[in-house]
Amino acid sequence: MNYKMMGRFIGMILLVECIFMIPSLVMSLCMKEERAAWAFLFTVVLLGVLGLGLRWLCRRARKTFFAREGLVCVGMSWIIMSVLGCLPFYLSGAIPNYLDALFEMVSGFTTTGASILEEIEGLPYGILYWRSFSHWLGGMGVLVFLLAIPVTGEGGSGFTMHLLRAESPGPNVGKLVPKMKATAQIMYILYIVLTVLNVIFLLAGGMPVFDAVCTALGTAGTGGFGIKGDSIAGYSPYIQNVCTVFMLLFGVNFSCYYLLLLKQVKSVLKDEELRLYLGIVAGSILLIVWNLRGFYDTLGETVRHAAFQVASIVTTTGYATTDFDLWPGFSKAILLFLMVIGACAGSTGGGFKCGRALLLVKNMLRSVRQIIHPQKVQVVRLNGQTVDEKVLANANTYLAAYVVIIIASFLLISVDGFSLMTNLSAVLACFNNIGPGFEAVGPTCNFGAFSVFSKLVLIMDMLAGRLEIFPILILFSRTTWRRK
Amino acid sequence: MNYKMMGRFIGMILLVECIFMIPSLVMSLCMKEERAAWAFLFTVVLLGVLGLGLRWLCRRARKTFFAREGLVCVGMSWIIMSVLGCLPFYLSGAIPNYLDALFEMVSGFTTTGASILEEIEGLPYGILYWRSFSHWLGGMGVLVFLLAIPVTGEGGSGFTMHLLRAESPGPNVGKLVPKMKATAQIMYILYIVLTVLNVIFLLAGGMPVFDAVCTALGTAGTGGFGIKGDSIAGYSPYIQNVCTVFMLLFGVNFSCYYLLLLKQVKSVLKDEELRLYLGIVAGSILLIVWNLRGFYDTLGETVRHAAFQVASIVTTTGYATTDFDLWPGFSKAILLFLMVIGACAGSTGGGFKCGRALLLVKNMLRSVRQIIHPQKVQVVRLNGQTVDEKVLANANTYLAAYVVIIIASFLLISVDGFSLMTNLSAVLACFNNIGPGFEAVGPTCNFGAFSVFSKLVLIMDMLAGRLEIFPILILFSRTTWRRK
Repeated sequence: MNYKMMGRFIGMILLVECIFMIPSLVMSLCMKEERAAWAFLFTVVLLGVLGLGLRWLCRRARKTFFAREGLVCVGMSWIIMSVLGCLPFYLSGAIPNYLDALFEMVSGFTTTGASILEEIEGLPYGILYWRSFSHWLGGMGVLVFLLAIPVTGEGGSGFTMHLLRAESPGPNVGKLVPKMKATAQIMYILYIVLTVLNVIFLLAGGMPVFDAVCTALGTAGTGGFGIKGDSIAGYSPYIQNVCTVFMLLFGVNFSCYYLLLLKQVKSVLKDEELRLYLGIVAGSILLIVWNLRGFYDTLGETVRHAAFQVASIVTTTGYATTDFDLWPGFSKAILLFLMVIGACAGSTGGGFKCGRALLLVKNMLRSVRQIIHPQKVQVVRLNGQTVDEKVLANANTYLAAYVVIIIASFLLISVDGFSLMTNLSAVLACFNNIGPGFEAVGPTCNFGAFSVFSKLVLIMDMLAGRLEIFPILILFSRTTWRRK
Repeated sequence: MNYKMMGRFIGMILLVECIFMIPSLVMSLCMKEERAAWAFLFTVVLLGVLGLGLRWLCRRARKTFFAREGLVCVGMSWIIMSVLGCLPFYLSGAIPNYLDALFEMVSGFTTTGASILEEIEGLPYGILYWRSFSHWLGGMGVLVFLLAIPVTGEGGSGFTMHLLRAESPGPNVGKLVPKMKATAQIMYILYIVLTVLNVIFLLAGGMPVFDAVCTALGTAGTGGFGIKGDSIAGYSPYIQNVCTVFMLLFGVNFSCYYLLLLKQVKSVLKDEELRLYLGIVAGSILLIVWNLRGFYDTLGETVRHAAFQVASIVTTTGYATTDFDLWPGFSKAILLFLMVIGACAGSTGGGFKCGRALLLVKNMLRSVRQIIHPQKVQVVRLNGQTVDEKVLANANTYLAAYVVIIIASFLLISVDGFSLMTNLSAVLACFNNIGPGFEAVGPTCNFGAFSVFSKLVLIMDMLAGRLEIFPILILFSRTTWRRK
């Protein structure tokens, strides 16, 4: 293990978190939220001291760096970021229990949006902003950000490659351009531009500036923390529709936008994952509108609510405009399906990812063809190109790990004694980074009622879901820490 | 496609079904159940005529036979067996609706035990016997039976190999001895001996002969059709405990019993799948007993009910001695887990199978080790032997197909509008060949309320589950039927 290099890196992460926390501090100061301001100040100073200290301590690091160290680094830095980042929640008194504060922070960084708070509207502005901003930072990934800025040249391309691979969502890293650093920069520029566009569209609908910024940050990261008790339900239909569109946009693979910039419209239109994603969205909306006939007053209202909820769940954002737990069984079944499938790979959305599901189904059909024609060599194609067998094997292993983690977490949190669907949907909502589930964790409820143990399980689920399982598995594997 | 060979084979199957239906006919005659006797007589004659006719029509068949034809043959023969085998239910008036009769028959042959009947106790004895006997025949497999009897030498070893592989449960065919025919014979002899032992133990507890035979047939096939409205709840604790033990015995890989006969006790004790299976059973019973403290009057009663329900669900039998839908959340969560994992490969039990789960988890851990030590070649070992990569890939593909079928069926039957847990557990209960689920399909309820469409979906699920998915996928694949 190259501990020094890992130390340097985690130090850097803490400095980034320190800098990104300053706007929240300033906001609390401007709003004269004394206790919150002190909490932010303390945490900012602590992060700065720890970050600089770690970098100084680990100033002489070897350059060699392996995949496993990259994965461990990613897992560790997300945990440390959350453990320290939740201090303002705790110290300001907004969340009096440290574990609850940690749950809320992990839920923020992992863009889950599952909350333990019963009352949101009384919270200090600084705290609300930090909650929403954590979605934005976690959505594209803090390490990806680190790679995008010019300061960090250290470690060489192998290093950055390992990190990017570990933090980026999806079955394979979408290398837009040969250089990793340039890829990270393009992704962040696109991310910022889309976020700003989202704010502008929300402001055009007469949304207050603070609300617009927080909502856009939560949308961009496909997070889902709202700043109102009823999430987005209280805003105008225009604003709800803007949210629907932008949620869907942030669920698209960012490389599609890059290709659009390069005017390769055709290859975007032919992208199989994008087609599947849009097909699932359109089909789900249609079926839910059909199933909900008579549930709302007008067809327009039905379409709006159906589209919003579908977009919110499939992109794993988790905003709500209506209590979908009251919908009829078929609509809820569709939402449960959307919870699992998730958005596109290479987007800020979570879940299993459409692209990975596509690979698995294609691989399954290949097996059927292989049995029927055993002599013919059968390959799996995606977007016209043969998919490497290793990628297929990885997608399969991912599914196995995904199922094992869901079953294990479900059993562990069941000890609390809630209903089967509460437990199952709580695990799915956290592990797929969605937020709300059904029954006792439905859109009008929160995760506060779970025991300490269950909250810890769900925290690990959120992290494992956001980091695509393996960094967390490797972080807690004995083999990783065994000395040779 | 070698249609003539398939015709010969299906003709043979019909003759076997014809012969096995005669005892039910005799029973109805003895009990003076006139309408049922006529129904059986008509069906027996029909099966005989169709069977002999098919064999005569297809008397000149080519010898060449491929895997795909074996799989299609298996899928078709199970469907035809059910379509004709349910005629006595329908014609006798026991089940006035043909689709319901078909559901009941498929549920019987696939050893599911899910029923659409509200009242069981008024049914004719012949009908009850045929219901229970269908479990016994379906449990070990009618094709395996056909291979075991001396008549069918046709087609050569390639032919029998394909058939046995298609019908036998588990990730790989347990070839006990080099010759397929001998393997099939040994399996059936063990099966008959265990069933007779089960009857004897039940009779020793004072159970009426008819009840003992039907219960033993349902236990042996891990089916679950009872002959009483309250399943096994009305019998004495001794009888319940006998059922528990025999259900667990029939969930063990039959090759273990063969090894015991050969006095290879050590290799049985070291069998990793058997250990996992027994570990899961013991762990589940302990946890449920702990969770149920105070639910029943005495500890003895708690242990008895916990052990019975665990054995019934993990072996996918589906008998019940208590309404487990009333149990607390944690106990229900454990049962839901047992529903999915299932019994050992090479047993009469259904589900995903412990052995396959073991392979998947080992493969997943291998991936983790591979990331940590990329240079080292990592292999997966089971019972000390390296597992072929093809077997691992198959287990992974099986998981993908399993998940896809569960999600698709869940969405399809959700249109009926029942609760999420009703729909999910109905699919799991049918696809894993268990029988009862939770809520509206709990142990005190039945599947009668589902729509025609949902019943058809669940019928396909039961068949796909019993035949391990691929025969049914291939039967309905366009590629299979396309002319070159």
